[in-house]
Amino acid sequence: MAGAKGRGDVWSGHDPVSAPLSGSEQDETLALRPKFNADGLVAAITQDAETGEVLMLAWMNAEALTATLETRRATYWSRSRGELWVKGETSGHTQEVVEVRIDCDQDAVLLKVRQTGGACHTGRASCFYRIVPFDGSPLSKDPHMS
Amino acid sequence: MAGAKGRGDVWSGHDPVSAPLSGSEQDETLALRPKFNADGLVAAITQDAETGEVLMLAWMNAEALTATLETRRATYWSRSRGELWVKGETSGHTQEVVEVRIDCDQDAVLLKVRQTGGACHTGRASCFYRIVPFDGSPLSKDPHMS
Repeated sequence: MAGAKGRGDVWSGHDPVSAPLSGSEQDETLALRPKFNADGLVAAITQDAETGEVLMLAWMNAEALTATLETRRATYWSRSRGELWVKGETSGHTQEVVEVRIDCDQDAVLLKVRQTGGACHTGRASCFYRIVPFDGSPLSKDPHMS
Repeated sequence: MAGAKGRGDVWSGHDPVSAPLSGSEQDETLALRPKFNADGLVAAITQDAETGEVLMLAWMNAEALTATLETRRATYWSRSRGELWVKGETSGHTQEVVEVRIDCDQDAVLLKVRQTGGACHTGRASCFYRIVPFDGSPLSKDPHMS
């Protein structure tokens, strides 16, 4: 294992070496080669490290991903505000990142976090507080997150 | 609660009534008003209903979402193939949908499923089999999903 690296070495987003590979090479590489979309983003699923509850889905650009790894505080890219978004910076509802995983084609990351307060901007524990019935009847709200 | 509705009533995607609302109205509505992106898609996070393990991230258009609700078999939109993708149709690795949730702004859904076989096209249980170390060292593979 390499020792801790300084800022800028954690993930050198503009280094051609870190461009995504294709097919099974991308699936099996041990290099971080995020496959950013046309907007320069990967999806980030955030999960409670203890309960396994899925808390939210957000987005990360290269800077947000690097910041999350370096600081262990979940940092996203706010698409609505067009700026880096350190989760909880204004609300206090921070996310201490316990583990980061990346998926087969490296266009999505999974953060396991210790959440302070509610993850959702509505104040609820999770953004997924509404259940969609199979029969087309109205959504219902999870009574544990009203 | 309304009774079961027929095909086409489950979610009338092109009905102006079902367009997203804004702000807190969208957060609190009990109507299904998916906020599709410019490609007509919402993100779909799939989670094992029993273990809570996050299995994959995929995408759904209106047709895939409707099909998932109607058939209770996870159905996505394959961006690479440009077609509807009934999970497991060729691999046999189907996903029986136990619950569907939608997030605050309705641009992401969460499926809780009973997974047959591996969820990942690599054969692994989950697509998130690689851990990203905080210190910039190479990724490691989850030994339970080698």
